[in-house]
Amino acid sequence: MSTVKSPPQHGFPHSELHARHERARIAMTTAKLDALVVTTPQNIRYFSGFETQFWESPTRPWYLIVPRDGDVIAVWPEVGKPALLASTPVGDVRSWSAPTPADDGVSLMAKTLKGLARKSGRIGWELGREMLVRAPRIDVDAMAKASGLEFADGSPTIWGLRMVKSEAEIARIGVACRIASDAFDDVPKLISRSDTTRTAERKLRIRLMEKGADHVPFIATAIGAGGYAQIIAGPGDAAMKEGDVLFFDVGCTYDGYFCDFDRNFAVGKISDAAKRAHAACWQATEAGIAAARPGVRFADVFAAMAKVLTDAGSIGNNVGRMGHGLGLHLTEPPSFMAGAPDVLAPNMVVTIEPAIEYAPGKMLVHEENIVIRDGAPEVLTKRAPREMAVIGG
Amino acid sequence: MSTVKSPPQHGFPHSELHARHERARIAMTTAKLDALVVTTPQNIRYFSGFETQFWESPTRPWYLIVPRDGDVIAVWPEVGKPALLASTPVGDVRSWSAPTPADDGVSLMAKTLKGLARKSGRIGWELGREMLVRAPRIDVDAMAKASGLEFADGSPTIWGLRMVKSEAEIARIGVACRIASDAFDDVPKLISRSDTTRTAERKLRIRLMEKGADHVPFIATAIGAGGYAQIIAGPGDAAMKEGDVLFFDVGCTYDGYFCDFDRNFAVGKISDAAKRAHAACWQATEAGIAAARPGVRFADVFAAMAKVLTDAGSIGNNVGRMGHGLGLHLTEPPSFMAGAPDVLAPNMVVTIEPAIEYAPGKMLVHEENIVIRDGAPEVLTKRAPREMAVIGG
Repeated sequence: MSTVKSPPQHGFPHSELHARHERARIAMTTAKLDALVVTTPQNIRYFSGFETQFWESPTRPWYLIVPRDGDVIAVWPEVGKPALLASTPVGDVRSWSAPTPADDGVSLMAKTLKGLARKSGRIGWELGREMLVRAPRIDVDAMAKASGLEFADGSPTIWGLRMVKSEAEIARIGVACRIASDAFDDVPKLISRSDTTRTAERKLRIRLMEKGADHVPFIATAIGAGGYAQIIAGPGDAAMKEGDVLFFDVGCTYDGYFCDFDRNFAVGKISDAAKRAHAACWQATEAGIAAARPGVRFADVFAAMAKVLTDAGSIGNNVGRMGHGLGLHLTEPPSFMAGAPDVLAPNMVVTIEPAIEYAPGKMLVHEENIVIRDGAPEVLTKRAPREMAVIGG
Repeated sequence: MSTVKSPPQHGFPHSELHARHERARIAMTTAKLDALVVTTPQNIRYFSGFETQFWESPTRPWYLIVPRDGDVIAVWPEVGKPALLASTPVGDVRSWSAPTPADDGVSLMAKTLKGLARKSGRIGWELGREMLVRAPRIDVDAMAKASGLEFADGSPTIWGLRMVKSEAEIARIGVACRIASDAFDDVPKLISRSDTTRTAERKLRIRLMEKGADHVPFIATAIGAGGYAQIIAGPGDAAMKEGDVLFFDVGCTYDGYFCDFDRNFAVGKISDAAKRAHAACWQATEAGIAAARPGVRFADVFAAMAKVLTDAGSIGNNVGRMGHGLGLHLTEPPSFMAGAPDVLAPNMVVTIEPAIEYAPGKMLVHEENIVIRDGAPEVLTKRAPREMAVIGG
């Protein structure tokens, strides 16, 4: 099994991490924030380079502070201090022995926040859209009270930074896309008609790892006669049937960065209606890619895709949008949807994801990952075939 | 590659899920809560059986309400409605087209909460220890305001329910433990001296999948001469050296339930000091297992392990505790630590995890997973060997 050739080494140079802090300082000045506090795996990794799978343990909260003035500070459980110091440029690590249920970093955080250079007295936390705070709410409330500072929504500031990718970030998303493209190519021979979706998904997951994926945090597996009713769950234990469409949506990572795209496979002969719907989805993807230029609104790219699907007789879909940003998360803002105010800019990485429901409960979804460039976008995924590949074919 | 024999089918019978609701209703009465609202993957799965990897997408919030009076209600993005209805007993699904940034379920949640039978006016959310709210904080604040209800900390109530496992839950943890035990047995031949920790970890991850793990959300990989400085991060790209100890801590899942245990492997000949420390850890594990009886305090089991390690010359460790609960999460309360007030009860599943630091930066950690039973506990993992297995051996 060949792995993807010469992917970049794991880990970012410290210069890139420092450049992120510099951009953050400028953004904080605009947003009138004295600091950003991040608690979630992706945001902590974005600002520090820290990687772990220990996020699976909800026991200890972790806090990374990016001040407008001064160096990054980690308020950090002792168990994570050696790894942070050894693998990141963060030098100011203030630790406590966690878990300590009576005071799990609360007084240490309050003290640290009070010691920051103050201008607005506002601290940006992950309070808003497409974010969450990975710490007990009662602790964060206690810190707000003890520090006397205003905890404001830093989400728009953070997404503003993460939305436009560096070339090093794009390279990593590109590796993930190539790994999944190669694995999808193998599916018709890897998977057989005697597989259930569960055994099929397991084979694909292992193949993605063999091809070089670090992790496979997301596979959705759907199946149904000529289409499917949903695209977020699965797999199951049912047998495949002639005429089914088997759908995989894959988010695998390389060095923390996701791909997010799907492919459809025919189980034997599919209906002509399913073939026509598949062709319409393929054309809608073309229209989306063609429309995706810097300065264009996300809503207009959505409209370009929607027109192709409506003309082909779509009765709608339940996905709620037709693509989104992509990076350290499987899905990031902005969204391709009606009314979206956002505008495409160079170095945004986005998914083009049209969905057609051509009969009740019969949906087909396509997806490709692209980078917005001056002029035409760069397609990171190996474009889906115009006609579905056949399982066992 | 043989997979673990006859694991239980995926998914719980609805009777078990209804029994969980019944226990929750009793606990809510005690805690004076009108409902629990859960937003995180594990708690939603606990109360509904809903499974997806779509949690990787932070875009949409999902709310499951367990009322003290009445059936479970899902306030749910449309994209997830078909899968919820098809795979769980939840029948009351109130959906909106998400994402809708201006009102992503906020007004629908406020209306739904206001419609619940009211006694205390208190709604339990995941606000406390070892929990988080997986929804934008600004949305939850808006719901509190719009509903006029008190949002209280439901975490102790939820952990109280989850802490004691059913036999069906224990069976699933047992499968995960057998899968990882089998994979660890393969390590000495699977991994060679020419592997880096990164290539070694990848081989182990694939082997775990081949043995039947659904997912491998957690592997920590550490290495060092005779011991290691940390146990939460890794892998890296360095070569193995004679005398190194290679450490893997594995959390793989079967039907949503984790194992969590580690093993140490020798690279060639390790020092006598490392051998003695390993033997002390092994004995401390014996002492922990022997002490783990119903009615015993977590603090006393900790003391039993700590005594063996102190007698062996331990200078401490940075882990902060020596084991914890285990289930839908890699780590759950309670913790084995000094001062812990909790008491062991039958059907708790816990990890026994002594750690010794026998010289600065040289730590060794052992771990086994057990079920508390009347009398001696049931050990779910295949006990670690007294002497470290040798890589390439």
